[in-house]
Amino acid sequence: MIKKAVILVSGGLDSATTLAMAREEGYVCYAMSFNYGQRHQIELESAKVISSSLGAAEHKVVHLGLDDIGGSALTDNNIDVPKNTDDLSAGIPVTYVPARNTVFLSLALGWAEVLNAEAIFIGVNAVDYSGYPDCRPEYIDAFQTMANLATKKGVEGDLIHIKTPLINLSKAEIIKKGMILGVDYSQTLSCYAPDTQGKACGNCDSCRLRRQGFKDAHIADPTVYHSA
Amino acid sequence: MIKKAVILVSGGLDSATTLAMAREEGYVCYAMSFNYGQRHQIELESAKVISSSLGAAEHKVVHLGLDDIGGSALTDNNIDVPKNTDDLSAGIPVTYVPARNTVFLSLALGWAEVLNAEAIFIGVNAVDYSGYPDCRPEYIDAFQTMANLATKKGVEGDLIHIKTPLINLSKAEIIKKGMILGVDYSQTLSCYAPDTQGKACGNCDSCRLRRQGFKDAHIADPTVYHSA
Repeated sequence: MIKKAVILVSGGLDSATTLAMAREEGYVCYAMSFNYGQRHQIELESAKVISSSLGAAEHKVVHLGLDDIGGSALTDNNIDVPKNTDDLSAGIPVTYVPARNTVFLSLALGWAEVLNAEAIFIGVNAVDYSGYPDCRPEYIDAFQTMANLATKKGVEGDLIHIKTPLINLSKAEIIKKGMILGVDYSQTLSCYAPDTQGKACGNCDSCRLRRQGFKDAHIADPTVYHSA
Repeated sequence: MIKKAVILVSGGLDSATTLAMAREEGYVCYAMSFNYGQRHQIELESAKVISSSLGAAEHKVVHLGLDDIGGSALTDNNIDVPKNTDDLSAGIPVTYVPARNTVFLSLALGWAEVLNAEAIFIGVNAVDYSGYPDCRPEYIDAFQTMANLATKKGVEGDLIHIKTPLINLSKAEIIKKGMILGVDYSQTLSCYAPDTQGKACGNCDSCRLRRQGFKDAHIADPTVYHSA
């Protein structure tokens, strides 16, 4: 019996690891990315490459007008992406995209229903990104409850499970896990503000967490930083 | 103190009435529609006209690739929109768009957060559309719980309320309510398969519910049906 899962793949380190873990669990993987007006659109290229190299059955890019809504440094050119902020844990960052995970999970839920998939994987992480409300376990639980009531499958008693295998892992633990599963992290892009060739800046919050993760894991960082 | 609300406006009868009710409650109304590859795109014209005539502060159309996902007669040209089905209450109809209300509410949640709005209005109705899982009160309650945990505002204790003023009304009751509030229903379009001029077919499930609603309310139906 084939088990299908939809995997949210951004092109970054966390979601690549999540995809590798879903495959390891025996799922036929349907990778899903969004073109939502993010400044760093080049991450969609990484999402395509990593989905292919980790054996996804399909990679779908869905268009989504989050930039019409605004409110985040990641979609709004009027808000600067912060660099070298001293305290990564201070409140909700300006890189927070309003309701982003809720929107992404909702669309994944729709595709899972069409595919007759039994799971959705999302690489949220409560350790490194405690500033984002929609990365917390209680949020994921509430989404699951809502999803059970929202769908045709759920009504028929056939639930779509929201899986968050990274939720309690540190960045170093995620990297170690991915290395064991054969993830080529040079294919991933975590930077919020890469250059036009897709080289990471090395200084934004996301780059700093990634660099520290490789350091803590005692694994050589394959990332090319343009300002390193 | 100004109260803001995001109103999901499709261009149909229910959401137009919802917009009028939100205005009646004293909200400054931000109308939101989606271009999601629906066959009946002309409904977006109706959404624009009705938002303006009911005094919305803004009408935003967000692009959304639901047609990439498929699975519904409303977005997929390979699935026929049913006409003259005998039993409107038989199971979940093929016009169900997977996770549609979840996706729409999620995007409304994002915009509400950016606007600092305190409510989202959606014209779901549990009476006429009992076949859609995401029109039931228990679904809306679960979405509310999830939304409280998903957002920056929610984390700060400032909730965004999901309001469903039509949920227990019959179509006739909705129409009577809207007439009192000055809704011009000739500006609305309910049909799943209108012609290129925006004339309703008169035969799809949505047209049939609308016609019956005007009949039951003893109000003349202003709709022009192309095959009436």
